Amino acid sequence: MDDILFKHSLPVQIRFNDVDKFGHVNNAIYLNFYDLGKTKYFGSVCPNVNWERDAIIVVRLEVIFHSQIRDIDNIAVETAVTGIGTKSFDLAQRVIDTETREVKCVCNSTMVTYDLLEQESKPLIEEWINAICTFEGKDLRKNK
Amino acid sequence: MDDILFKHSLPVQIRFNDVDKFGHVNNAIYLNFYDLGKTKYFGSVCPNVNWERDAIIVVRLEVIFHSQIRDIDNIAVETAVTGIGTKSFDLAQRVIDTETREVKCVCNSTMVTYDLLEQESKPLIEEWINAICTFEGKDLRKNK
Amino acid sequence: MDDILFKHSLPVQIRFNDVDKFGHVNNAIYLNFYDLGKTKYFGSVCPNVNWERDAIIVVRLEVIFHSQIRDIDNIAVETAVTGIGTKSFDLAQRVIDTETREVKCVCNSTMVTYDLLEQESKPLIEEWINAICTFEGKDLRKNK
Amino acid sequence: MDDILFKHSLPVQIRFNDVDKFGHVNNAIYLNFYDLGKTKYFGSVCPNVNWERDAIIVVRLEVIFHSQIRDIDNIAVETAVTGIGTKSFDLAQRVIDTETREVKCVCNSTMVTYDLLEQESKPLIEEWINAICTFEGKDLRKNK
Repeated sequence: MDDILFKHSLPVQIRFNDVDKFGHVNNAIYLNFYDLGKTKYFGSVCPNVNWERDAIIVVRLEVIFHSQIRDIDNIAVETAVTGIGTKSFDLAQRVIDTETREVKCVCNSTMVTYDLLEQESKPLIEEWINAICTFEGKDLRKNK
Repeated sequence: MDDILFKHSLPVQIRFNDVDKFGHVNNAIYLNFYDLGKTKYFGSVCPNVNWERDAIIVVRLEVIFHSQIRDIDNIAVETAVTGIGTKSFDLAQRVIDTETREVKCVCNSTMVTYDLLEQESKPLIEEWINAICTFEGKDLRKNK
Repeated sequence: MDDILFKHSLPVQIRFNDVDKFGHVNNAIYLNFYDLGKTKYFGSVCPNVNWERDAIIVVRLEVIFHSQIRDIDNIAVETAVTGIGTKSFDLAQRVIDTETREVKCVCNSTMVTYDLLEQESKPLIEEWINAICTFEGKDLRKNK
Repeated sequence: MDDILFKHSLPVQIRFNDVDKFGHVNNAIYLNFYDLGKTKYFGSVCPNVNWERDAIIVVRLEVIFHSQIRDIDNIAVETAVTGIGTKSFDLAQRVIDTETREVKCVCNSTMVTYDLLEQESKPLIEEWINAICTFEGKDLRKNK
């Protein structure tokens, strides 16, 4: 993930009960952070996302926890689309300390877009693929 | 994971707000289920765990989401230790539908035991290794 | 609340991250418990509730926290309808320790039923009022 | 609460899974917002709060929900101390829409300060009482 340039960064507000009794942010909470990052990414990069109809659903994720997060830390979640297939696409995300730039946690995930009305997956529409490739500055389609 | 025999199973009570606006259990909530499963596993298999001092911390996890969970589903989380190294150990977990036996989600994770007072990782103690190997019915130590 | 007979009781499964860094169940989590109790109450007492269309929404609640809950405690949430008005109804709920019968927390709330399709509140239907009064064993209607 | 001047305001970042399947922020989540507001209030107003030792615990709260919050809303939590007794103190809080100034929800609560090492409540120390009264611009002590 070291070679990924993250162009989308979102400061995350840590909440009191994000921290469990071990005194650090609970591992499940990181997925809330990643949800937040990807929601904002698609809301800002892709035109006319209608969250009442269009869902983005995780089908696989791998998370590596490098360092604990305390409630006094200042953090941000960074998000990049790294590949677009015919029926799914890949996300790279990480949580960093905004002061030290330390990488706290990285996440690679495979997502599908899902039609909430039809209750079935659907491919990313061409308009969104173009918008994402433009934002990321490269052609991310796996099948060209 | 198909060849793993899960000897530890815990029914999970789904809560109203586990379900997000897409109408299914949110992906982050699955990690709460896995936390619950592993906490009960170690509490019952390992003698004298002192959660004030002994933490079990996730350093890596990979989750594959096979099928959505609705709030009316009846589910359980199953947990097995699959390998014990010198400084870490491996867990396999999955969420199943207790009526249909459908596998909803699987999770492979690497854990470390952590001393909360010293704030540093520590190896699994011999007593716990023996208890886990006895429970699982095989020698799980990677370095013998 | 001492004079209320609770006929509906639901054991609650405490999760690892219900506990905050103070070492007790976080105050916000109690509302998850109360949500769980009322959802099960209406699902079992009222015939044909359709949660896709029928929402039960809190408009006011008062919670008194009597005693902390630890993750090793065994608890249940108890729920009773205590009054039915024209546009709202009242709930009494409490969380108890199922071993000691100690009352950990009590909650009085005012609820409205809400039509999710029309996005507006609606009165409890006669069928549900009758079912609730039958379950509670008394006429709970404020305006008779 | 209309006559309370809120001098402490904190923008709140809404998360994807704050919203439940009814499409609005779940009632339990509001308490996370209030926790966040009070934690920041005491962290900034009271000198030398040591959250490892000093807890602020809710003993009673009353919440009135005026209007639903959607995930696209921009909100803030406002916090004021309204009274200081010998063993407890009172908080007024509310969640507002930062664009329309609409009051979404109000909360009145009674808090106690708690010594986590001794595991017992303790009075607010004089230094904090003075700092709070200075911040709020009036003498809030009930017993003078």
